[in-house]
Amino acid sequence: MSSPARNPLIRDREVAFVLYEQLDIERLCQLDVFRDLDRDLFDAVLQSARRLARDVLYPAYPELDREPPVLKDGAVTVHKRLREDIYPRLIELGLSCAARPEEVGGQGLPYVLSAVAATYLMAANASAYSYTGLTAGAAHLIEAFGSDELKQRFMEPMYAGTWTGTMALTEPQAGSSLADVSSTATPTDDGHYLIRGSKIFISGGDHDLAENIVHLLLARIDGAPAGTRGISLFAVPKRRLEGGELVPNDVHAAGMVHKIGWKALPSMVMSYGEADDCHGWLVGEPNRGLANMFQMMNEARIMVGFQATATAAVAYHESLIYAQTRLQGRPVGAKDPTQPPVPIIGHSDVRRMLLRQKAIVEGSFALLARTALAFDLAHHADDEDIRAREHTLLNVLTPIAKSFPAEKGYEANALAVQIHGGYGYSSEYLVESWLRDQKLNSIHEGTTGIQALDLLGRRIVAGGGAGLRALADAIGLTVGRAQGAGVDPAWIECVTQALASVADLTAELGQRGMSGDAAGMMRNSYDFLDLVSTLAIGWQWLDQAAAAHEAKRPDDDFYRGKLCAAQYWFATEMPRVALLVARCRASDDAYDRAEPSWF
Amino acid sequence: MSSPARNPLIRDREVAFVLYEQLDIERLCQLDVFRDLDRDLFDAVLQSARRLARDVLYPAYPELDREPPVLKDGAVTVHKRLREDIYPRLIELGLSCAARPEEVGGQGLPYVLSAVAATYLMAANASAYSYTGLTAGAAHLIEAFGSDELKQRFMEPMYAGTWTGTMALTEPQAGSSLADVSSTATPTDDGHYLIRGSKIFISGGDHDLAENIVHLLLARIDGAPAGTRGISLFAVPKRRLEGGELVPNDVHAAGMVHKIGWKALPSMVMSYGEADDCHGWLVGEPNRGLANMFQMMNEARIMVGFQATATAAVAYHESLIYAQTRLQGRPVGAKDPTQPPVPIIGHSDVRRMLLRQKAIVEGSFALLARTALAFDLAHHADDEDIRAREHTLLNVLTPIAKSFPAEKGYEANALAVQIHGGYGYSSEYLVESWLRDQKLNSIHEGTTGIQALDLLGRRIVAGGGAGLRALADAIGLTVGRAQGAGVDPAWIECVTQALASVADLTAELGQRGMSGDAAGMMRNSYDFLDLVSTLAIGWQWLDQAAAAHEAKRPDDDFYRGKLCAAQYWFATEMPRVALLVARCRASDDAYDRAEPSWF
Repeated sequence: MSSPARNPLIRDREVAFVLYEQLDIERLCQLDVFRDLDRDLFDAVLQSARRLARDVLYPAYPELDREPPVLKDGAVTVHKRLREDIYPRLIELGLSCAARPEEVGGQGLPYVLSAVAATYLMAANASAYSYTGLTAGAAHLIEAFGSDELKQRFMEPMYAGTWTGTMALTEPQAGSSLADVSSTATPTDDGHYLIRGSKIFISGGDHDLAENIVHLLLARIDGAPAGTRGISLFAVPKRRLEGGELVPNDVHAAGMVHKIGWKALPSMVMSYGEADDCHGWLVGEPNRGLANMFQMMNEARIMVGFQATATAAVAYHESLIYAQTRLQGRPVGAKDPTQPPVPIIGHSDVRRMLLRQKAIVEGSFALLARTALAFDLAHHADDEDIRAREHTLLNVLTPIAKSFPAEKGYEANALAVQIHGGYGYSSEYLVESWLRDQKLNSIHEGTTGIQALDLLGRRIVAGGGAGLRALADAIGLTVGRAQGAGVDPAWIECVTQALASVADLTAELGQRGMSGDAAGMMRNSYDFLDLVSTLAIGWQWLDQAAAAHEAKRPDDDFYRGKLCAAQYWFATEMPRVALLVARCRASDDAYDRAEPSWF
Repeated sequence: MSSPARNPLIRDREVAFVLYEQLDIERLCQLDVFRDLDRDLFDAVLQSARRLARDVLYPAYPELDREPPVLKDGAVTVHKRLREDIYPRLIELGLSCAARPEEVGGQGLPYVLSAVAATYLMAANASAYSYTGLTAGAAHLIEAFGSDELKQRFMEPMYAGTWTGTMALTEPQAGSSLADVSSTATPTDDGHYLIRGSKIFISGGDHDLAENIVHLLLARIDGAPAGTRGISLFAVPKRRLEGGELVPNDVHAAGMVHKIGWKALPSMVMSYGEADDCHGWLVGEPNRGLANMFQMMNEARIMVGFQATATAAVAYHESLIYAQTRLQGRPVGAKDPTQPPVPIIGHSDVRRMLLRQKAIVEGSFALLARTALAFDLAHHADDEDIRAREHTLLNVLTPIAKSFPAEKGYEANALAVQIHGGYGYSSEYLVESWLRDQKLNSIHEGTTGIQALDLLGRRIVAGGGAGLRALADAIGLTVGRAQGAGVDPAWIECVTQALASVADLTAELGQRGMSGDAAGMMRNSYDFLDLVSTLAIGWQWLDQAAAAHEAKRPDDDFYRGKLCAAQYWFATEMPRVALLVARCRASDDAYDRAEPSWF
């Protein structure tokens, strides 16, 4: 009963617009590291990803959503289609490590390109794709911090996809509080440690897709200090090599969490060292585990942002197709019942819901692509200043890129259900499944509340306000571009004013913190994140408006749609900036002073 | 794995506060119709409802959610526990028709009391309760418009619960557009009509709980005019009486919609008259069906508001219990990892999510109770002016009472999931199920978009602005009360200013409509609904603050919590009024002018 037209997941034109017209990623080919690349290659990468997404991953979604993995006798069996068709093709595509250098098994592509290509796969089937994404993240940790021996033993088969990887951080008693990690690691004379502990919510913690699974696990070496400064990082394989053979490593699938979405990917309760025979190998320096893990965590957060964007995008397109084809009722002022009904996109309120989705989805996509571009420039720009500035920008954008698509994307997904009416409330249609999938994105890899604390408490005030300055510089470039392209000056003014008020507010809050009132500074961190996110998306819509003007094709529907969505954001969302600034400044103490017994 | 403390569904103290301290429903006992009643009786009614809710309906929820009804060989079988235990006890409780007069089988209780008592049942198990609620609504239609013969034949067994009822409005091709209803009714010489047609989303359309099901069905009598003015209302039983026996009436369960929530209640595709032998009896005048149906629809919308409030309330309490018991991390500024972790309610951002839920849930509950009280006063007040004013108030409040708890309640339900973190994303915990249940409430009985059109296009401007004046009068009484009770003058000023700006805006929009720009008037109807709802909830918080002050127990945690939640609403939500007024006034045309090809 799905809609008759084919869901594009993400439109190819949208991708080309953002990559080439808005962000001009072809300029990356002038950098030394990318000098052998060109747009034809980029397009070929995008094309193979979208083909696999549309032809293989998307058609399998309903089945994989209905038939999740099964844990039986301590082992997880995944869906046959995932094992026999999808996973091998994902490995063949090789996208998840495409941005790594060739010498470690990657393709040396820009991160922005590989991430955008992956977005098609995420939109098609979030949880099926994520085995490879998680594995690449885990392998990257070993690449960055592991010894050559560990790289050869673990990283290589992981990048090749013959083994997979996990992030084993969370423990049942500690949740988000990594300071309370209590898994232990006891040194041995043989170079490895003996690991003991339990972890929960381990995505891909067990399955039958690959011959081995390497857990990148946080634990405390015996005698390490309490808190975050006593945590080390270990590579803990499901099976270890002994005498040329893989033998069990005392790693056990103790239980499965029955998630409400992301159904193709098991979320496991894992037990390590029940028989005191779980070997783990230290990755990087002792007690530096959490700091090192945050490299992977930052990348994982950006991927969550892409994921959330993708999940909102596929639902947006589904509801758009539905609204264009579902005939029902007549517009306000044309109620003659003898006239045929119109497609519901003819109703103003349906267009409201579609345009809001479009503004959220495409604004998110642009922000994520810009964030990924910052990753490339931070690592590879010729100019050291650019590298430093983009690194700082990347740092500031990460919590926004992680949380905005998760929070507003959830709203967008709910609107896609709403447009489907009663049909949207049934599992015969797909929109409800993406609503379930989306909810995870405000929770995993650091909840929205944690992103908010991170943005205001650390990232935007770091380096004496360098984070804010990097954002202001980037927005300044867009303002200049928009002026040159002839964008409505009112829109430009809207962004510059919002930026100025965010700068004033940040200084004021920072001052509050430095004067000893940390609670007062942080009280409205959630609103502050919302505020800076609204500005950041406004920045992207200004940039897209400039690119649309530069195309000099005012009658083209694509560009008209871009300008219309930009208008929506400036007229409808940007006024919230003043509201949120006032709220942060007033810092009402209702929820801070509320005693547990008052609820 | 549910939380150890017992979920109260709704706190008894909250109910007593709203009914007796805020609304003083004991004054109803001075009215002629309620002269034999007193608070002891009211409390006894509440007590039996909450006992059944907590002891029977709530414990059955997980099982009924997991094992929905099954359609096989054209007949629906519901869960055994529902059939053998829950439904008989609900009938025995007799709550759904308790507010009807004794002469038709009710108990002559105030509507506000019966609705509030029912809220416990809704919070415990929305879909299990709703069989009786739907039946009462359908029976009430026959009571209001049917002949004595129809009342005897259909209404009596429905109010008694031996038969159930449905609302059979929606058709697959027409959806919300009732003007396009195409089911037909052909008169016969035997007093009945022959019905032919299909309906979809018929809640309780088939089941094995009762010996008969009466569908209150909209159809067109042959030759009736097109559109809404040619629709008539029929009672169409699943089985009809012939020769003293119930025989099949050519009513068929053609399919079942697989809903994502409300699992205990089947949503059916129904087919009437496949064999040209489906008898229906006209209820009320020919071609007046839609107008008459709206009596039931108005009541159904208020019940959706109670339902949405209930579903948000149970989740609020679940997340509150979780936050009070789950130990994790340490507050900002107290990061010593050697100290034990705190209950997560100790984290500012968790209290933010709890206080927001509390403000939404308790604000909604008060608004619904006030709306139900308007129902009682509109029908039974001694003074004709009061009856008229409360009737108008009821009319204005209905779309707000229906949609605010559905929209903001959904946000509250999502916050309850968020507080549970990764656990909230799993079906081992109950919070995700209420998130699913809640989503229906913005869709059924008229979507939020339809409520918005109804409020701005009809109800608030009806009678030359009488709707607005009734709301202003009611708010004025609360303002006087708050002044007398010593409520913070800033809060009072906040509400009076918001009311004044809503009044100005309504006049301006009405003017726009009368000058021929209907589209311009209605463009921001969704924002207008949001705006008036924010004011209406502010009104309720002002009233609750006044009642809390009147209690003169400033150290009591309950009242402190009330004042704290009121503070939150005034500081955090009421400033949105100015934003939304500006948005409605500016009437940006982005989504109205967006062409389908621009998306």
